[in-house]
Amino acid sequence: MNNQPPPEHLRHKPFTPLDQPRELVLACPSFKSQVNLSRIVRLAGCVAAEKIIVCGSTKVDPNIARDGMKQVVIERRRTLLPVLKKLKQLNYRLVGLEQTDRSSGLFDYSFERRTALVIGHERLGITAEELAVVDDVIEIPVYGMPFSYNVVTATTMAVYEYCRQFPSG
Amino acid sequence: MNNQPPPEHLRHKPFTPLDQPRELVLACPSFKSQVNLSRIVRLAGCVAAEKIIVCGSTKVDPNIARDGMKQVVIERRRTLLPVLKKLKQLNYRLVGLEQTDRSSGLFDYSFERRTALVIGHERLGITAEELAVVDDVIEIPVYGMPFSYNVVTATTMAVYEYCRQFPSG
Repeated sequence: MNNQPPPEHLRHKPFTPLDQPRELVLACPSFKSQVNLSRIVRLAGCVAAEKIIVCGSTKVDPNIARDGMKQVVIERRRTLLPVLKKLKQLNYRLVGLEQTDRSSGLFDYSFERRTALVIGHERLGITAEELAVVDDVIEIPVYGMPFSYNVVTATTMAVYEYCRQFPSG
Repeated sequence: MNNQPPPEHLRHKPFTPLDQPRELVLACPSFKSQVNLSRIVRLAGCVAAEKIIVCGSTKVDPNIARDGMKQVVIERRRTLLPVLKKLKQLNYRLVGLEQTDRSSGLFDYSFERRTALVIGHERLGITAEELAVVDDVIEIPVYGMPFSYNVVTATTMAVYEYCRQFPSG
């Protein structure tokens, strides 16, 4: 950047348009933390995800989620398993984000456009019943302590990778 | 995954080894939020970043950062500008994460291995003086409301992309 003025902040830059609506659903458990849920809502809003499914009664904090709450459909369910089976019938590829004995690495994983990303509980992860219905399981390499990403951090990476593969929706 | 037993959780999976130590420095401002700083420390630990430089006196919460605090060198400075100049002398590529009039999209950006990722303040972003010394500026496409990623979310995406490009360090 020699011989030029330095870059200037651009606030309120126009958003990147999508050629078609995203077919990305985030399927969430009954999170322990409303902060985690609320951060995922903001993330989902920013990438224009189709929908968040969330179990239980964990609240969304509008100070954290901001207008993500207006952007994204948030569907409440009692449990995730029936809705995963429904999504499968609707031809969503069910992709669990979990360390398992046969997870694919996120760096090498090719998403399908029509994807439901299944997210695990902060402490318990994805349940055995849910793992039995997902089509694929992906995991993210960890290189150092504390050896596990926060659930929002892991979700952010997976959603980023999805968007990188489908930059226009 | 037909005709096989469902995938099984693997807790405490061994971490992915690096062929060489990462040369990734995260250069942080004096964050408003100790939660944001602490989450970045955990992230930096999990990817085995070389160092975090942080300005001011924002504390790291060990309940959030966990053993990231043991994994990563955390260097405190009064201001970022002198340390950025020093990093440049040490041949780090200074990469600002900011929406500007000439930012490259993260999807298309090729990192150098020896990189200092310059992170902006939650409200103020990267200062004009800092923007004047960075080598490149990158930004992440935003597709919907609230039209801006939380600083940890944006940092997570940039760090993920760096690791994707250098999966073995």
